[in-house]
Amino acid sequence: MNNFTFYNPVKIIFGKGQIEAITKEIPADARVLITYGGGSIKQNGVYDQVMQALKDHAVVEFGGIEPNPHYETLMKAVSMAKQESIDFVLAVGGGSVIDGTKFIVAAMEYEGNDPWDILAKKIPVTKAVPFGTVLTLPATGSEMNSGSVITRADTKEKFAFGSPFTFPKFSVLDPETTYTLPLRQISNGIVDAFTHVLEQYLTYPVNAPLQDRMAEAILLTLKEEGPKAIQNPKDYDTMANFMWCATMALNGVIRVGVPTDWATHYIGHELTALHGIDHARTLAIVLPSLLRYKQESKKEKLLQYGARVWDINSGTDDERIEATIQATIAFFESLDIKTRLKDYEVGQETIQEIVKRFKARDVKDLGERADIQIRDVEEILKLSL
Amino acid sequence: MNNFTFYNPVKIIFGKGQIEAITKEIPADARVLITYGGGSIKQNGVYDQVMQALKDHAVVEFGGIEPNPHYETLMKAVSMAKQESIDFVLAVGGGSVIDGTKFIVAAMEYEGNDPWDILAKKIPVTKAVPFGTVLTLPATGSEMNSGSVITRADTKEKFAFGSPFTFPKFSVLDPETTYTLPLRQISNGIVDAFTHVLEQYLTYPVNAPLQDRMAEAILLTLKEEGPKAIQNPKDYDTMANFMWCATMALNGVIRVGVPTDWATHYIGHELTALHGIDHARTLAIVLPSLLRYKQESKKEKLLQYGARVWDINSGTDDERIEATIQATIAFFESLDIKTRLKDYEVGQETIQEIVKRFKARDVKDLGERADIQIRDVEEILKLSL
Repeated sequence: MNNFTFYNPVKIIFGKGQIEAITKEIPADARVLITYGGGSIKQNGVYDQVMQALKDHAVVEFGGIEPNPHYETLMKAVSMAKQESIDFVLAVGGGSVIDGTKFIVAAMEYEGNDPWDILAKKIPVTKAVPFGTVLTLPATGSEMNSGSVITRADTKEKFAFGSPFTFPKFSVLDPETTYTLPLRQISNGIVDAFTHVLEQYLTYPVNAPLQDRMAEAILLTLKEEGPKAIQNPKDYDTMANFMWCATMALNGVIRVGVPTDWATHYIGHELTALHGIDHARTLAIVLPSLLRYKQESKKEKLLQYGARVWDINSGTDDERIEATIQATIAFFESLDIKTRLKDYEVGQETIQEIVKRFKARDVKDLGERADIQIRDVEEILKLSL
Repeated sequence: MNNFTFYNPVKIIFGKGQIEAITKEIPADARVLITYGGGSIKQNGVYDQVMQALKDHAVVEFGGIEPNPHYETLMKAVSMAKQESIDFVLAVGGGSVIDGTKFIVAAMEYEGNDPWDILAKKIPVTKAVPFGTVLTLPATGSEMNSGSVITRADTKEKFAFGSPFTFPKFSVLDPETTYTLPLRQISNGIVDAFTHVLEQYLTYPVNAPLQDRMAEAILLTLKEEGPKAIQNPKDYDTMANFMWCATMALNGVIRVGVPTDWATHYIGHELTALHGIDHARTLAIVLPSLLRYKQESKKEKLLQYGARVWDINSGTDDERIEATIQATIAFFESLDIKTRLKDYEVGQETIQEIVKRFKARDVKDLGERADIQIRDVEEILKLSL
């Protein structure tokens, strides 16, 4: 097992009717900015529950944070928040609203010239306004980690940042808030969480059997609950299990002491930035090809994943690995998530564009062995055509 | 799944050579009290590593905290700490030193007359001096939770308390510190951790498949790594895996949203208080009998535990349950942990004494269904004779 540090101070308040708990979690004298997305929270009753809970707080709203939240939009929220002397922010929504809010609270306290530098120049965040979240879309895990991914619309760039100062103070996870989600977002969420686990699990063994089994616990549960969630998105326990899986997939528990491989995310971000393909779908496109391309160096873990998650126990190693990748693809496709670039009308030109962008950014050493270079990214994407 | 709140702000610093990290984790201007037990840390080099790391800090020591730490001893540390104007405490040792330290830091700030009331009258702790830990004995999980169990020597009482203020600020887990542990303590630690998991898992199903699988992940890993730890207690990865299992067993992750049954601990505490039997051994005595006695109400989970952890898949339900309990007993005995009261020269009189004590304390409603009464405790203990 590798050395590690684990720290996650997010308070999770999980279950039916828990939104009212925010009344006590946010200081009574705080001036609160509520951030949200396209307004679905106004249709499904979540907005009303939040407002009811904050009826004695001073509240200002900022709506319209888009999927893959835009720097440009978020900077408007920063201006508003400063003008309104906001000292607590409440993100109500999914991963995009939460990621966007992490950037807002960091940018509000940023002392340099341009908060974009937090993303483009990786300037460390040293303070941030406190914030909490009410999660309405299980997927990214952002509700229980300190990471964030932001897109700049004018340059079509998508960058990540994180800091110990951008953990939510609390996150409310009420599975009932997911009842009105479009099926597309549910299947995206399942694939997003499943891929998060695989990126922390499908690397190489370092004799960390507990972490392996905990990762497999999430995979097996998503395999079981995912299809049920699509079939019956108003079944409380199903949605609760899916919701908790998505949070546990990226809160740090399964990554302690093991190598991780975020190449799939890194490559996928480009497909979203260039073509607006849903984040989870970019992962479903890239992951199977990456596994196929790196199957030699991921061999032991691929065989273990196949045996323990998909009951693939017979055949040569190569046959078992291929069957395992096929089972993964079949799982994604069963959730109506297409796994080929051509399904999204993306072809060779985009691959070349990504290669060009990576060269300009001098991208190198992706993957758990730091051995995925730009030419490998090109080969991986070709396998996804 | 049941509603839940999860909050665990302990920073875990895990791995070889990590003790030196405490230099930066403890404020440079803090006056530090180091607490420890019988002095094994002075033989195995841990004390020297700690002192080296704190060479620029103001340090005072308090040694001699015994197993099942005594209120009487801890109150001496409280006096010393107040006299020395201590503002940070570092516990170096196992669960007893850490539990004792939690009481010390709470008692230092206690404003009532008698800090014993925190235990006997369950007076809530509302503040505490900050503290960290260097763990040397994987077992109790105290390094990553806020709970503590304290014994009063003069009355032979053993009570638990916990508070959001008694989470360690950090815990250093260096598996190399376990290399010199007596085998007796290693097997105690394995059984302690294993039982902690079973107490959160062997209740009744509430449709929480992820929590179930995470509990099974720890059980399977302890089943695998436990015997290796006894055989080769200087194998780094084995001890690292055991150490991380023991922490994960009681840091709150596997108990979220599920019922728990702490009756085994509650009854076991009496055997320690009356006869000084090692804590883990009391669990090994009580647990199998409790499972047998409550097998009807724990049926579904017992069958699942048997199938997934011990591969027990054939026979009638009753046969499978009996085989599962036998497998659990065989596992404990394989670690040289005896599971019968007579193995510890304890008989009927002690059972009657415990019944008397429980009556005096008006104990009732133990177990996950609050249906274990004093007469049931008596029957459970008789099954352990």
